[in-house]
Amino acid sequence: MAFDTILTNGLIVTASDILPSGTEIGITAGVITALGLALPHGPSTKILDARGAYITPGGIDSHVHLAQKNSPTGDGWESGTRSAAAGGTTTVIAFASQERGDESLVPVVEEYLKLADGQSYVDYGVHCIVTNPTAKILDSEFAWLFEQGVTSVKLYMTYEHMRVPDRGVLEILFKCRELGMTTMIHAESHDMISFIIEGLERKGNTEPYFHALARPRIAEDEASYRAISLAELADAPILIVHMSSEVAVNHVREAQGRLLPVHAETCPHYLFLLSEEIKGKEHDHFSGAKHVCSPPLRHRMEDLEGLWRGVANGTFTTWSSDHAPSKYDHPGGKKLGLVDGIPRFSKIPNGLPGVETRMALLFGQTEACLPASEAKLSLSRFVQLTASNAAKLYGLSGRKGSIAPGFDADLVVWYPGVEGKRVIEQGKMHHDMDYTPFEGVEVGNWPRWTMLRGEIVWSDDEGGVVGKKGIGEFLKRGRGEVVMGRTGNVPRGMLGDEREYWR
Amino acid sequence: MAFDTILTNGLIVTASDILPSGTEIGITAGVITALGLALPHGPSTKILDARGAYITPGGIDSHVHLAQKNSPTGDGWESGTRSAAAGGTTTVIAFASQERGDESLVPVVEEYLKLADGQSYVDYGVHCIVTNPTAKILDSEFAWLFEQGVTSVKLYMTYEHMRVPDRGVLEILFKCRELGMTTMIHAESHDMISFIIEGLERKGNTEPYFHALARPRIAEDEASYRAISLAELADAPILIVHMSSEVAVNHVREAQGRLLPVHAETCPHYLFLLSEEIKGKEHDHFSGAKHVCSPPLRHRMEDLEGLWRGVANGTFTTWSSDHAPSKYDHPGGKKLGLVDGIPRFSKIPNGLPGVETRMALLFGQTEACLPASEAKLSLSRFVQLTASNAAKLYGLSGRKGSIAPGFDADLVVWYPGVEGKRVIEQGKMHHDMDYTPFEGVEVGNWPRWTMLRGEIVWSDDEGGVVGKKGIGEFLKRGRGEVVMGRTGNVPRGMLGDEREYWR
Amino acid sequence: MAFDTILTNGLIVTASDILPSGTEIGITAGVITALGLALPHGPSTKILDARGAYITPGGIDSHVHLAQKNSPTGDGWESGTRSAAAGGTTTVIAFASQERGDESLVPVVEEYLKLADGQSYVDYGVHCIVTNPTAKILDSEFAWLFEQGVTSVKLYMTYEHMRVPDRGVLEILFKCRELGMTTMIHAESHDMISFIIEGLERKGNTEPYFHALARPRIAEDEASYRAISLAELADAPILIVHMSSEVAVNHVREAQGRLLPVHAETCPHYLFLLSEEIKGKEHDHFSGAKHVCSPPLRHRMEDLEGLWRGVANGTFTTWSSDHAPSKYDHPGGKKLGLVDGIPRFSKIPNGLPGVETRMALLFGQTEACLPASEAKLSLSRFVQLTASNAAKLYGLSGRKGSIAPGFDADLVVWYPGVEGKRVIEQGKMHHDMDYTPFEGVEVGNWPRWTMLRGEIVWSDDEGGVVGKKGIGEFLKRGRGEVVMGRTGNVPRGMLGDEREYWR
Amino acid sequence: MAFDTILTNGLIVTASDILPSGTEIGITAGVITALGLALPHGPSTKILDARGAYITPGGIDSHVHLAQKNSPTGDGWESGTRSAAAGGTTTVIAFASQERGDESLVPVVEEYLKLADGQSYVDYGVHCIVTNPTAKILDSEFAWLFEQGVTSVKLYMTYEHMRVPDRGVLEILFKCRELGMTTMIHAESHDMISFIIEGLERKGNTEPYFHALARPRIAEDEASYRAISLAELADAPILIVHMSSEVAVNHVREAQGRLLPVHAETCPHYLFLLSEEIKGKEHDHFSGAKHVCSPPLRHRMEDLEGLWRGVANGTFTTWSSDHAPSKYDHPGGKKLGLVDGIPRFSKIPNGLPGVETRMALLFGQTEACLPASEAKLSLSRFVQLTASNAAKLYGLSGRKGSIAPGFDADLVVWYPGVEGKRVIEQGKMHHDMDYTPFEGVEVGNWPRWTMLRGEIVWSDDEGGVVGKKGIGEFLKRGRGEVVMGRTGNVPRGMLGDEREYWR
Repeated sequence: MAFDTILTNGLIVTASDILPSGTEIGITAGVITALGLALPHGPSTKILDARGAYITPGGIDSHVHLAQKNSPTGDGWESGTRSAAAGGTTTVIAFASQERGDESLVPVVEEYLKLADGQSYVDYGVHCIVTNPTAKILDSEFAWLFEQGVTSVKLYMTYEHMRVPDRGVLEILFKCRELGMTTMIHAESHDMISFIIEGLERKGNTEPYFHALARPRIAEDEASYRAISLAELADAPILIVHMSSEVAVNHVREAQGRLLPVHAETCPHYLFLLSEEIKGKEHDHFSGAKHVCSPPLRHRMEDLEGLWRGVANGTFTTWSSDHAPSKYDHPGGKKLGLVDGIPRFSKIPNGLPGVETRMALLFGQTEACLPASEAKLSLSRFVQLTASNAAKLYGLSGRKGSIAPGFDADLVVWYPGVEGKRVIEQGKMHHDMDYTPFEGVEVGNWPRWTMLRGEIVWSDDEGGVVGKKGIGEFLKRGRGEVVMGRTGNVPRGMLGDEREYWR
Repeated sequence: MAFDTILTNGLIVTASDILPSGTEIGITAGVITALGLALPHGPSTKILDARGAYITPGGIDSHVHLAQKNSPTGDGWESGTRSAAAGGTTTVIAFASQERGDESLVPVVEEYLKLADGQSYVDYGVHCIVTNPTAKILDSEFAWLFEQGVTSVKLYMTYEHMRVPDRGVLEILFKCRELGMTTMIHAESHDMISFIIEGLERKGNTEPYFHALARPRIAEDEASYRAISLAELADAPILIVHMSSEVAVNHVREAQGRLLPVHAETCPHYLFLLSEEIKGKEHDHFSGAKHVCSPPLRHRMEDLEGLWRGVANGTFTTWSSDHAPSKYDHPGGKKLGLVDGIPRFSKIPNGLPGVETRMALLFGQTEACLPASEAKLSLSRFVQLTASNAAKLYGLSGRKGSIAPGFDADLVVWYPGVEGKRVIEQGKMHHDMDYTPFEGVEVGNWPRWTMLRGEIVWSDDEGGVVGKKGIGEFLKRGRGEVVMGRTGNVPRGMLGDEREYWR
Repeated sequence: MAFDTILTNGLIVTASDILPSGTEIGITAGVITALGLALPHGPSTKILDARGAYITPGGIDSHVHLAQKNSPTGDGWESGTRSAAAGGTTTVIAFASQERGDESLVPVVEEYLKLADGQSYVDYGVHCIVTNPTAKILDSEFAWLFEQGVTSVKLYMTYEHMRVPDRGVLEILFKCRELGMTTMIHAESHDMISFIIEGLERKGNTEPYFHALARPRIAEDEASYRAISLAELADAPILIVHMSSEVAVNHVREAQGRLLPVHAETCPHYLFLLSEEIKGKEHDHFSGAKHVCSPPLRHRMEDLEGLWRGVANGTFTTWSSDHAPSKYDHPGGKKLGLVDGIPRFSKIPNGLPGVETRMALLFGQTEACLPASEAKLSLSRFVQLTASNAAKLYGLSGRKGSIAPGFDADLVVWYPGVEGKRVIEQGKMHHDMDYTPFEGVEVGNWPRWTMLRGEIVWSDDEGGVVGKKGIGEFLKRGRGEVVMGRTGNVPRGMLGDEREYWR
Repeated sequence: MAFDTILTNGLIVTASDILPSGTEIGITAGVITALGLALPHGPSTKILDARGAYITPGGIDSHVHLAQKNSPTGDGWESGTRSAAAGGTTTVIAFASQERGDESLVPVVEEYLKLADGQSYVDYGVHCIVTNPTAKILDSEFAWLFEQGVTSVKLYMTYEHMRVPDRGVLEILFKCRELGMTTMIHAESHDMISFIIEGLERKGNTEPYFHALARPRIAEDEASYRAISLAELADAPILIVHMSSEVAVNHVREAQGRLLPVHAETCPHYLFLLSEEIKGKEHDHFSGAKHVCSPPLRHRMEDLEGLWRGVANGTFTTWSSDHAPSKYDHPGGKKLGLVDGIPRFSKIPNGLPGVETRMALLFGQTEACLPASEAKLSLSRFVQLTASNAAKLYGLSGRKGSIAPGFDADLVVWYPGVEGKRVIEQGKMHHDMDYTPFEGVEVGNWPRWTMLRGEIVWSDDEGGVVGKKGIGEFLKRGRGEVVMGRTGNVPRGMLGDEREYWR
C-alpha cells in the first residue's frame, strides 16, 4: 500500500456525507485506492495538504457544446476543456450531432471523436444528437452507439432543422429503454415559438430582447409535460435539459413522486441572471445578444426562487453549463443577428459560455460560503448536482463522480474560507471567447486545485492550467441508472402489462 | 296578453333554481311571453297540465353527427332529429365537415345545410369541422362562417386525415378569438395512438377490444394539457369534447381555477359503460364493435367516479351525446372492421348512437329520481349540462336553453314520479340504427312531452313523435360566451400585454 | 292579473342569465307575480321605468353584526339596517350571541329579537353564535332554534372567550347535519395567534400594525383545513366566514372538487384594501385602528389577486360585509386600544363597517361598469355572491334572492351607465359610525332604487332612505341547501357506511 | 496501519453508492479506519470474508419502546436489544417518558437510563417524551436534556393523558429550534378519535376491529397538516412518526418541496399488513388484538401502494419499527382489552413488536432480493431509511449510520443471494414476546452477521446472538441536521423577518 499521493487535512464531501475530519485520500496510479484516518506514507508518496478546505469530486459537466459546426466561432476541444479544468470540471460530455441529411450516425460520431483526439485537458464522453431517427439508425446504429460507449442521445422538440416529432420521440425512447440508454430532451413547443416569431417579425419587433417574448414559459411548460407523458408511455428514462420554468419543474416533481424515470437539468444562467440582461446597454440594445440562449432567461426574481427550490429539494438531477459559445464581436458569431445593420433576434446564435464558471457559482451558494440560514443548498447536494448524479445517469458509475476507493482520483480542492472569494471577469477566463455572461458576479470560492486522475491540472495559486493538452481520455460509458429512490432503469409505469400487447 | 298555451302545475327548473310551485308558463307564437303565478286565460288558450312533474328546458345536444359522409350507414337528418325529439332534445348542433382536400368551406357548409333543409324535427345549428386551415380560409372564410351563424368550429388533434398540427390550432384559436367564435377540440395524441396501433397490428392483436388499449388515457391527458396550453397562449375559448379521463378533467379544473376560458364536454357512454363492453359476447368478440368509439370506454368504476365528480362539481360544461352512428350488421358499417373475416379494430367506424337516450340517462341521476343522498347531480346542474350552458357557449343566448320570457318555448315535461321509469331497448328507439349501446339500462324517467317553440313534438303517452318533419329551423347563431364566473369571451391570460407585440 | 307595480325597461339579471331586454317585472302585494314581455297594466298599476339599467335581486348580507353587546359603540338595528337599505341590501342576517356563561340559547335569541322589533328598515334573519355547546343545548335547543327559523349557527375556532374546541365543533356539526342546519365557522388557529400576541406584547410591539403580524395567513390556512376535515368527518355543510388567504381558499376549492359540502365567504375589505392601511397616518399610527379586523387585511397585491380568482371562479359562495362597527373616536370604541395613551393592538375592538358599501364595491367590478376584458366577475356571479347563494344556503329559497314569480319583490335598480359613478365618503353614509374604511374609493355605480317587497325604500335621486323604520320583517328561515352541483344537504363523504357504526 | 479486522469480498452499500467491488473495510479498535482496494494485513488481523454479499451500515431503529411503564408485559432493555441485534440493528433510540404529573424531566431521564445500564446488546440513545411542557421545563431542562445527549423530544397530539395542545407544541418547537433539537410528533386528531370512540362504545361496537374505524385516515391527515403548519410557523424541524396515510404523506411531500424542515417516518406493519388482520380468527375475533396499534393498519392495497411510493421517492426519512410490545396471552397485556370477557378495543394496549424484523422486511424489497423491475426501492434508499438518515436527524453524524473512515464499525453482512431467504416465525424471534405480527411472511434475506463496533454480535450461521449483554453503550447525541437538500437546522420559513418581532 504505497500511495503515489495522499491528500490530507481536507473535509471530504460526498453525495451523502461530509466525512469526519482527519480522513485522508490515498491515490495510486490515478485511482483512489484508500480513504483512511492515517494512511501510511511510502518513501515516494507526495503529500498534498488541503489545509482545512473542502474537497469535492471533480465536476462532471454533462451538457457542453464544443467544436460544434453550427457555432464556428466558439470553443473547440482545446479551449473548452482548458476552461473546464480551470473551473474544477474534470469530465465533460459533449455532443456529436446528426444533421438532418446524415443517413448514418457512424461517421457523425467517428468524425467528432477525431476532433477531440489529443486535444482535451479533461476526460470526456460523447452524447449523440439525433435529428432523424430512421429505421436503420434505430434498428442497428443505436446498438453500435452503445458499444462505442455513447450511451445517451439528445433530441430536440423545437428548432426547424433539428426537431423530432412526438412519434420519433417514442421510437427513440423505446429503443433506449431496450438498450439501457438515456434520452436527453430539449423541451419547448416548436409550434408556439415559430408562430410567435413570425408575428414578432411581421410587426418589426426584432431586437434581441424579443427573443425572450418569443419563447414564453408556457412553451416550455407544455413541451415538458408532453415529454414526461411520452416517457411514461414508454416507461423509459429521460432528462429534460436546461429547465427554466417553475411550472415545468413542478411537472417533473409530480412525475418523480409517481416514480416515473424523469430527470431534470438546470443551468447557472437561469438561476443567476434575469431577462433584463437581454435588453443590452442603453445605447446598444444589440449587446443583449450576449445573453440570448434558449430557453431564454426569465423575467422575475420569483422565477429564480422557484428554480432554487428545485435545486435544493432534490428535483433537479444535474447542474450543467450548457456551454454553447458564440463570440459576440465577430461576424460569424452573435453578430449574425445584425442583418444589414438591423437587429434580427431570430438570427442570433443561441447559447452562452459557462463551463468554467459553473462549479464556483453553485459552490458559492452552499454552507461552505454562506451562513446556514442563507445557504441555498447543502454541500452534498452540490456534489450530487455537479458530479455524482451525472455519473450515475450517464453510465460512469464506479469510475467518476464519487470520492471512494476504485474511483478515478478526480478532485477539486477549494480554498479554505474567504481566501477563495473571487469576482468573475472575462480577463480571467480560459475559454476562447470574448465575453462571459457572468461578468462582475462575485463567487464565494474558486477551485484552488483541480486534480484529474491524480494529477493536478489546475492550480490557482501556482500557475493556472498546469495540465497538458491531450491528457484527457475518452470515456466509454456504460448503461445508465435511474437516479431516484427506485432502482433499475426499466421501471413499471401505469399501463402495467398492457405494453406487452404492442411492444 | 292572450296566451296560446299555458303550462301549469309543473315544477319549473332553471339553471339556478327550482321555481316556486304555482308558477305557470305562458306561451305566445312559440315564445315564452310570461312566467307568472296565475296567468290570465284567453278564450283560445290551451291549458297543458303538467301534473306535478318537472319542466326543464328543451335539450340542446351540441355534439351530433348526422348525414356524415364517413358514416354512410348511420342517421341522416330525418331519423336523427326524430330520435332527438323523442328523447327530449329540441336543438341539435351537427357538423359540416371539411375534407382535407376541400379548398373552401363555403360549399362544405352550403351543401351540408341543403341536406338538412326540410328534414328536421327539431331546430338545428351547424358547427364546421376544419381539417385544413389555409390562409385563405382563415383570412376570409371564418368571417363568412360567422355571418352564416356558424360561430363555432371543431378540430381534431388525432386521425391521420383530419388532424390539425399545433401550429394550425394556434392559427384557428387566434382567428376565433378575434371573431368571437368557439373552438371545439378532439384531444388525443395522434403520435402515441398511431405508434401503439402499429405495434398491435404487428403483433396480430386486432380484435375490437384492442381499440381500448390503442388509445390509453395518457393519450387524452397529454393532448388535453396541450390544448389548454394553446388556449392559454391564444387566450381564446375552447371546449374539449367527449372527455373520458379523470386526469384530463383535472387539468381542465385547474385551468378554470385560473380563469382560463377552457370548457369541457362529456358523454353518457363514458359515465354508464365500461370497456368490458368492447369484449363483446363470449362466442362473438366482434360484437364488441358496437361499443367502439374514441376516446374508448374506460376500464374501472374508479374512472367513472372521477367523471361523475366532474359532472357534479361544475367542471363539465356540457353533456352531449356525440351521436355518431354506424349500423352494426351492415357491410358499410361496423362490419368494415371485419376484413376477410379477420377482425381489424382499426377499421371499425368509430362512434355510438345516443341522441335519444342522452337526456333521460342524466335526468335519472338527479334528485328527481333518486334520494338526495344518492343523487349524482342537482336538477339545476342537469339544466346547465343539457341545455343552458350549450346555449351560452354556442351563441344561442336569449333564445334557447332557458325558461324565461323571450326564449323559445322549448320544453321537456317529465312524468311525475315513478310513472316515468323505463328500460332502454332498441325496439323503442326512433333512430335509423340496429342497436343501442345502452340496451337494458334502466332510467328513472322519460320525457312525457317534448315541446318545440310551443308545439308538442313528442308525446310519450299520445302517439310518440307527433311533430312534423321539417318543423325544425336552422339557427343562425351569434357570438358565444365564456361559461364561467368571468364575463366576456376575450379574457386576459398570463402573458398580459406581451401578446400585443406579436398579434 | 292587475299588478300593483310594473318595473319596465331594465335588464334583469339572475344567477344564471341576463334576461332578454323587454322583460318586465309584475308585482302584486309585494311579491313578484309575473315576468313577461308586455305585461298588462291595470288602472292603478304604477309603472317604474328602469331606463336601460340593470336590475338585480335585493342584496342579502348574511354576515352583519348589529346591536352586539361587545361593540356598544357600533350600529344598532335601526342605523345598521338603514345603512343596508341605502346600499342595496334588503335582507340582513345578524347574530344572536351566546356568551360563555349562558346556559340556554332561548333567552339569547328571544332578547336579541326584541331589540330588532320595530327597528329594521329591511327584512332580517338571525344566526345564533354558539360558544358553549352543552349537552342540553345540543339535545333540545338546536331543534328549538330550527323551529324559530334560526337555522344556522356560527362558531369560533379562536378568541379565548368564544372559541369552541374541535370536539365541540364535531358535536355541533353532527347535530346540524341531523336537523338540516348550516354551520358558519371563523377559522383561525387560536394557539398560533395567542402565542404570537404574547410574544409581541413581551417585546413591546403593540402598535395597531402588529395586529396583522399577530394573525399570519398560516393561522387561517391551518384552521381552514381543520374545519374542512371536521366537516368531512361529519359530512355536514359548513361555510368558512371572511376568508382572506389564497392558500385557505385553495383548500376549499379542493374540497368542493371532491363534493364535500364546504362553502366559503369573503368580504370587500380583503379584496380592496391592503395591510398597509393598518399603519395609519404618518404622525398618527394609532389611526390604523380603523382598519383592524380579523383576519387582518393582507400584505400584497398577489394576495388580492388570488382572492379575486376565487370570486370569479365560483369558489366563494357569498360576499358579505362582516359589518362589525366600533366608532373610532370614542373611548368605548377603537380607542379602547389606547391604554394610558399607549397603543395596545390586542385591545382594539375588531371589525369594520361595510353593510352599505358591499353591493356597490362588487357591482363596480362587473362588466356593467368595466370593459369585458377588465371585469373581474360576471353579473350573474354578482347575483350569486350578493343574494341568491345566501338565500339557498340559509334557507330562504323560494322567497328571497331571485327575480322570479313567487319571490318577494326585493330588487336593486342601478343607474344606467356612468351616471352611477360615485366616490365613497363617510359624509354620504347612513350608518351610525364616524368613518368608513373605504373612504375615497371610487365605485362604478350605486343603487338608484332599493325595493323591499315592492316598496322603494332607498331612492338615490329622490330623497335617500324613504322606507320607514320597522318595515323590515323577521324571516323564519327553513332548511338550507348545499350550494354546489350536488343536491341535498346530507351528502356522502369518504367514510361511506362506516359512520353508521358510531353515529 | 495494522487493522484488527478486515472485511473483504463484500459489496459495500452507502447512502449514495454501491462501492466498486474489491473495496475492503479496515477496522481498528471498533472504528472503521480505512476503506481501500487491497488493505495491508498485519499479523493479528482477522479477515472476515463476506463472500459476495452486500454490506450495509448497522441498522438504527430510532423508534423503539423498551421497559415502558405503560406496557409492563413487553420487552425490557435486555430482550429488546437482543432482538435488535438479531435483526441487524446496532443502535436503538428508546423513550424516557414524562408522565403528566412529573414536574421535572431530570429524574425521568436519569431513572430510565439506569434501567438500561449494563443491559443492552446494542448501542442506544434516548429521546424524551414530553407531556407537560411547563415553563420551568422549557426554560431550563431542555438545555439540560441537550447536555445529556438527549437531543430529541417526542410529543403526542392524541391520547388523553399524553397529548400536548397546539400551544404547547409551539413552545416546544421554538425551544428546540433554539437549541438545535428535533421534535417527533404523533399526529392524530384527538378530538375526532375520542368523539368516534364514544360513539362506538355507546353503540356497543367494541370488538378489536372497531379500533380501525375509531382512527380513520382523516384523523391522521388533519393532524399531520396541523403539525406541518406549526413547524412552518416555528421554522423548526419535526419528524412525523409512524405515518400510515397517503394523503398525510402528500402533505409532507408538498412541505418538503417548499423546503420546510418536515421529516416523515413509517413502519413495516403499515406497508406489509392490512386492517383485515385486526378482525382476528373466525372463531376468535379478539385475537385481532395482536394487530392493534395506532394509527391502525389501513384498509386497502391502494393505501399500501401510496406508502411504498413514499418509501421509494424520498419522502420518508426513516423506516422504524415502533417496537411497542405487549404480550397477547397475558392479563396485563393485550388481554386488558377483555373486560369481564367482553372485548373493549379501547382498553387494548397499543403496539406491535418489530425491532427484529424491521431490517429484513425492507431489505427483501430491494434489488438485492428482487429483479430490478419488481424492486420497490434501491439499496441506497434502504441505507438512508434504516440507518444514515436517522443518524443525521438525531445527531449521530460522523459516528453512526455510514460506512466510512471515522465511523463506528457497525455493519450488517447479508447472505449472498437466495441463501438468506427466511420465513418469519415467532419461534425464531429473540424478543420476550408471545407472537410476531409478521408470522409467516417470507423475507428475501436475513442478516448473516451483525457487527457492533467491530465485534460480531449476531451470527446467523454460528450460534445466533453472540454479543454479550451490556456491550451496548449509551450514545450522547449532538445537534441534529435537516435531512434534505437544504443545509442547517434553522432554515428560513415563509414569514421571513416577521418572526423577529415576536421571538
